[in-house]
Amino acid sequence: MGMTGERAPICEMLTAYAGSRRTAFHVPGHKQRAAWHVGNADERYQPLLEWDVTELDDTDDLHHPTGPIAEAQRLAAECFGADETRLLVGGSTAGNLAMILGTAEPGDLLIVQRNAHRSIFHGLMLASARAVLLPPEIDRESGLGVIPNVQAVAKALARYPEARGVVLSSPNYYGMAGRLRPISEVCHAAGVPLLVDEAHGPHFGFHPDLPPSAMQEGADLSVQSAHKMLSALTMGAMLHMRGTIVNREAVRQALRMVQSSSPSFPLLASLDLARRQLHVEGSKAFEPALEAVRRVKEGLPDTRFRSVGPRNDSGSGVGDGFRYDPLKLVLHDAEGRLDGFRIRDGLSARGCEAEMADARYVVLAFGIGSRPEDGDALIEALRDLSADSGRSDRTPERPRPMAMDGGTADIPEPVQFRRDRGGRSESVPLERSVGRTAAEWIIPYPPGIPELYPGEKINEAILYRLAEWKKQGANIQGAEDPSLRSVRVFLAD
Amino acid sequence: MGMTGERAPICEMLTAYAGSRRTAFHVPGHKQRAAWHVGNADERYQPLLEWDVTELDDTDDLHHPTGPIAEAQRLAAECFGADETRLLVGGSTAGNLAMILGTAEPGDLLIVQRNAHRSIFHGLMLASARAVLLPPEIDRESGLGVIPNVQAVAKALARYPEARGVVLSSPNYYGMAGRLRPISEVCHAAGVPLLVDEAHGPHFGFHPDLPPSAMQEGADLSVQSAHKMLSALTMGAMLHMRGTIVNREAVRQALRMVQSSSPSFPLLASLDLARRQLHVEGSKAFEPALEAVRRVKEGLPDTRFRSVGPRNDSGSGVGDGFRYDPLKLVLHDAEGRLDGFRIRDGLSARGCEAEMADARYVVLAFGIGSRPEDGDALIEALRDLSADSGRSDRTPERPRPMAMDGGTADIPEPVQFRRDRGGRSESVPLERSVGRTAAEWIIPYPPGIPELYPGEKINEAILYRLAEWKKQGANIQGAEDPSLRSVRVFLAD
Repeated sequence: MGMTGERAPICEMLTAYAGSRRTAFHVPGHKQRAAWHVGNADERYQPLLEWDVTELDDTDDLHHPTGPIAEAQRLAAECFGADETRLLVGGSTAGNLAMILGTAEPGDLLIVQRNAHRSIFHGLMLASARAVLLPPEIDRESGLGVIPNVQAVAKALARYPEARGVVLSSPNYYGMAGRLRPISEVCHAAGVPLLVDEAHGPHFGFHPDLPPSAMQEGADLSVQSAHKMLSALTMGAMLHMRGTIVNREAVRQALRMVQSSSPSFPLLASLDLARRQLHVEGSKAFEPALEAVRRVKEGLPDTRFRSVGPRNDSGSGVGDGFRYDPLKLVLHDAEGRLDGFRIRDGLSARGCEAEMADARYVVLAFGIGSRPEDGDALIEALRDLSADSGRSDRTPERPRPMAMDGGTADIPEPVQFRRDRGGRSESVPLERSVGRTAAEWIIPYPPGIPELYPGEKINEAILYRLAEWKKQGANIQGAEDPSLRSVRVFLAD
Repeated sequence: MGMTGERAPICEMLTAYAGSRRTAFHVPGHKQRAAWHVGNADERYQPLLEWDVTELDDTDDLHHPTGPIAEAQRLAAECFGADETRLLVGGSTAGNLAMILGTAEPGDLLIVQRNAHRSIFHGLMLASARAVLLPPEIDRESGLGVIPNVQAVAKALARYPEARGVVLSSPNYYGMAGRLRPISEVCHAAGVPLLVDEAHGPHFGFHPDLPPSAMQEGADLSVQSAHKMLSALTMGAMLHMRGTIVNREAVRQALRMVQSSSPSFPLLASLDLARRQLHVEGSKAFEPALEAVRRVKEGLPDTRFRSVGPRNDSGSGVGDGFRYDPLKLVLHDAEGRLDGFRIRDGLSARGCEAEMADARYVVLAFGIGSRPEDGDALIEALRDLSADSGRSDRTPERPRPMAMDGGTADIPEPVQFRRDRGGRSESVPLERSVGRTAAEWIIPYPPGIPELYPGEKINEAILYRLAEWKKQGANIQGAEDPSLRSVRVFLAD
């Protein structure tokens, strides 16, 4: 920590630049002056417009940094335990795309968990890569998919020695994280990198109650949405690189392709500030948020809502060998009267906005900006909602995700990814979809594992599974027809 | 115009949302509270953090908009003369990538001007497209490359009837725009779309002194950096679509692939505000900037600096049939004592920051935020610099760009683009580079036309041209060795 970590090179540069009061004959066109004259928009933007500058010799170049951006990246690498960190202005999406594009050439094979974020699938499509899609293990308590187990990864690597890397998304949207250390060891024994989409875990490793980060567990690349749980502006993210297995220049080159050639300095500066906050405050930065969660958990027994995950207050869960992010509170109605959507709506009506809901759960995301009194507000809303006699139209049952065993199932055949054929598609009845190629995502929540992704060929086994989900009345996200009577497929060539 | 154009749906939504004072249990992690405690960073960010929210039912979804974002896009389409407009948070880079990815499947052929922006080349690489690279016509007065002429485009379309579209970048970085109407007519007669990277021309068509926009001239797709000349935040851009030739769903799908799944609302709102400003103020919005330019041009005869382009004050130039953006002032030293870099540095020392410089010219970019007094500041700096007896080490000659005739030359053979081989490259002496594949850009300014792009095979003709530029002591941008003694090439497979 010490003096170096207290520096914020991009902010210092911007402060000096704004203070020099030069007349701008360069972009952006607003010339650091807000003149929209509507509501209080001008007052809202004006202070930050002074930092909305362009890439000049003084301000540095994100794609070939040599000045303050390079220095901010060195400090970030130090803070997050990486050998090299790249600040991202295109969100974890940009990092995930670059992770895949920088690792796989057309036709190269990657081992990828099936419940990866869409941006991972988009990366596979843009890279024209092949992938073995491994089903994740299911957390028994919640029925949610986490990551494939280490045996499955080892088996896949043994069967496909040509694999160029293993791609995992951990933690999942619900804050459940896999144990990555054994997997990184298996990867390194096979000479391939472990690439982790850690979008939801930028805070991992910074407090004893938080799970360790992918970097700490031996990952070679990790991508973190610094805006999700830390204090950066939305779209601010980081890509961390460690070790020598990864071709770093290929990753940097991929970032130059997918990110704007006019990056936002207010965004970059917010990443610098978010990193500095961790450097300076360390684990203390998360105490207010953890205290907020503690207050909610203390009050939960007085309500009919229960949380998924560890029962102890420390937040370090065990589950099925998974770890739980204590800053994600996953609640359900123990009396089964309200489904996740109704809980979310009930909380919203009481002034508390949740992160997401599914047929069973509501997810409340705390963050570095949360305050203890936020916990008071939430428990008060939960108490009030608990006293409400409301009932959902359909009582949510404990989900019965169909077996997609992360360990013992056979390793699937590789799939060749490609970009879809330009959206020329049609909707067909589910029962007549066999043999067609899906043009949409079908993702039941929980467990949040895609049953179908755009480009996947629909076979009898898939049809059976979709029919089962339909029978269960599952909550299907992303599909054009959530009732699964029909499915969108590409027109035949 | 009227009431509808005065609306700003995204801003209205954010104002209402911020005013509802709900407690956030969703991302972003800062929870609308700045707590970095360094300098005045907290005060700078706080007002806008209240608008830095996430995609919720209330706030809308950029990738599948149905609420305020959809409405803002409809207003933008109306304002910019498009049938459909998509707001972009990834800059024109995202729009250019999507324009190519949405038009070309692997192996498809596009007709592309050789001096296109790098993002166009990156799009070709990601799309694995083939391209016929047409040299642009050179503006005789300035020696700068603009766009290929209509005869060259027609010839290329006749020779390659399988072409899926024509891709142009207009205006160029110096503000010179080609006449697009005849080209769009040739394209439509051939049944292919005209796609225009209009990053530098978001203001075109909004004032009688400004050239018409690509949409007005019949383009099917155009991409504009609303931050460059209008008042949006940096990275704010728009993609406009018109007519029925383009598969719009394919373009939308490509945008979903290359843009963040957590888009920035302050950025989106700034696009809404920038559009509203044009809708409400119309041509008046550009009067202050045009007056600033007028004041500079009036004062120029008292200095030894001269501007490229139209001599009249109205800004409507003729040149070689090109149009000049009056808001880009391109200056050089009529006595040939200072090169473009020295002029830039001299102006910077006098408090005026230029957009860019090359061996001969300095480019001053005015924008919608420029004020008449900015012109006074610039002319004062120019007068002072003019009185200075300074001299560059090397006197910049009028550039002698080698013939790359946009009309009469033979149509080049198509090139198959692909992503490079992961950055494994080496530097070799220029004279030993024939037969190797370039791993870097070599772009002499002026004329700003790539002599070599990553992936291009170096042949004797290219070597000759590079040796000529080296002899001229050209200003080579982007190259590892700007002296051109060596060039970076990929390692042999």
